[in-house]
Amino acid sequence: MTAPLRVAVTGAAGNIGYSLLFRLAAGDCYGKNQPIILQLVEIPPAMGTLEGVAMELDDCAFPLLHGIEMADNPGGGFRDANQVFLVGSKPRGPGMERNDLIKENGPIFVGQGKALDGAASDVFIVTVGNPCNTNGWIAMQNASKVPNARFTAMTRLDQNRAMAQLAKKAGVQTTDIENMIVWGNHSSTQFPDFTHATIGGKPAADVLDRDWLEGEFFATVQKRGAAIIKARGSSSAASAASAAVDHMHDAWFGTDGRAVSMCVPSDGSYGVPNDMIFSFPCVCTGQGNYEIVSDVAFGDFGNGKIATTRDELAGEAGLVADLV
Amino acid sequence: MTAPLRVAVTGAAGNIGYSLLFRLAAGDCYGKNQPIILQLVEIPPAMGTLEGVAMELDDCAFPLLHGIEMADNPGGGFRDANQVFLVGSKPRGPGMERNDLIKENGPIFVGQGKALDGAASDVFIVTVGNPCNTNGWIAMQNASKVPNARFTAMTRLDQNRAMAQLAKKAGVQTTDIENMIVWGNHSSTQFPDFTHATIGGKPAADVLDRDWLEGEFFATVQKRGAAIIKARGSSSAASAASAAVDHMHDAWFGTDGRAVSMCVPSDGSYGVPNDMIFSFPCVCTGQGNYEIVSDVAFGDFGNGKIATTRDELAGEAGLVADLV
Repeated sequence: MTAPLRVAVTGAAGNIGYSLLFRLAAGDCYGKNQPIILQLVEIPPAMGTLEGVAMELDDCAFPLLHGIEMADNPGGGFRDANQVFLVGSKPRGPGMERNDLIKENGPIFVGQGKALDGAASDVFIVTVGNPCNTNGWIAMQNASKVPNARFTAMTRLDQNRAMAQLAKKAGVQTTDIENMIVWGNHSSTQFPDFTHATIGGKPAADVLDRDWLEGEFFATVQKRGAAIIKARGSSSAASAASAAVDHMHDAWFGTDGRAVSMCVPSDGSYGVPNDMIFSFPCVCTGQGNYEIVSDVAFGDFGNGKIATTRDELAGEAGLVADLV
Repeated sequence: MTAPLRVAVTGAAGNIGYSLLFRLAAGDCYGKNQPIILQLVEIPPAMGTLEGVAMELDDCAFPLLHGIEMADNPGGGFRDANQVFLVGSKPRGPGMERNDLIKENGPIFVGQGKALDGAASDVFIVTVGNPCNTNGWIAMQNASKVPNARFTAMTRLDQNRAMAQLAKKAGVQTTDIENMIVWGNHSSTQFPDFTHATIGGKPAADVLDRDWLEGEFFATVQKRGAAIIKARGSSSAASAASAAVDHMHDAWFGTDGRAVSMCVPSDGSYGVPNDMIFSFPCVCTGQGNYEIVSDVAFGDFGNGKIATTRDELAGEAGLVADLV
């Protein structure tokens, strides 16, 4: 049988972690023939709850789950890990601005970046904990042995949300939506690029009203997190976990030439500074390898949107310049 | 493409529901080639939360999820359903005895049983909400059009827990454990029959200490729910959902001759009264068909355990005799 993959997850006792771990153990991410060992990482006060989560994982008798290890620090938690989900982060408290959140979270990702030097040589990382682009960038800058290209962050939830909105409006299934890429920062400046998306093979802008696309569609995708909190009484968990599964699944298995939204270190395409972790269309070729699609043509509308979200990310980097 | 299966879930906004729905939509239960339409059922006060859950399901852009319908009553919720998960039930409140719980839940399952007459002609049902055997029995007695054999209840969580405990003690994987059947009522009188279980092909009682099997093993499996609550601070959700997926997956696809634990209406085997919903070893032959394994030989130990759990179930039936 294939050797088990070591899969580390931070924030493993949190709500996204609780939705994620059972899907990983069921084989939804790495397939039904790939055993895994879960390396669950939490902060010390959450270790009791984490023990309960591990008991429930045991209680599923998952055939693919060959082991569960727990650590209250990233050094122990990331050791020899092949795949890493950086899910844990400090949530935004009452009255906290995004800039406060960035500064609060930064130091966590300094330590995690350093700890990733102890991971396996093929380690591949997705940052889910927000602000995920900048958190991932801090970790990348603090890891000395891991190639930059192995650090990614997640806009797949935004892509999935955008696909769902287009499908609903057009009265089709999400499988009829293609090339719906979300660009830039996982924040309200993100650019859900409907201008290259297709619905049943036709340009989205030919199928749906342009005013709706630039107005309600944009606003719905960008503010979806708040709408979920309002309806459900707590923030997105299972859908965030599902997007993380999609992101890592596609990076692992490849996408057969399809482009998916991933925040990856820039290669300078589209005027995005080198190494800024920015969401681009990426074609995954398997085992965490990917290529940025570098020839998408934009007019003023798209170029303006990309500039806005790029400038926001540059500003975030400035806030945490002392950490890198 | 295959026509979508209609899958109804009660208690869809609850914790088990939240763990279950995303696994169903991901294809973990009915496979990666079977689209589904989810029919989510809740009580009226939970419809707002349910709306948030449905939004998150949308936001996953699951290729197999071809529709989401919501209902605040079982009549609407079960209409034309092929597969039904009866997850919702009143939880046990502080100071409430099991008998109170049985009486509180009974009337819910009267209405659900009647509503199941509006389901598809091939409807297959698992009751997860506790006390699941008696709840399922009440529903069965109140449905006039659905054959009794289509009503089942869940001991798969107990089986999975038992397999995990045996594997952990023996230092093997759960895939090395076979024929670990839990008999009777999903309650503390359940009989996790280690006497016919095997570990790496050998009788469990030859591999592990008999005192441990009759003592700590029994107690751990029977009291696992309370241990999870203590560790995690809330009751088993993802592991219960996972067991429900296993139960329905195996009933749908068949088990290739393997026996699994399912509570099904008795055919009189082992002195269990006809139609009592009792956990037996069942070999599933697909599309919800199954056969009770009727030739397991027991000595005094096993016969005594089966009598105890059977008598408890007869007592539960007596408590709700006015509902059938």
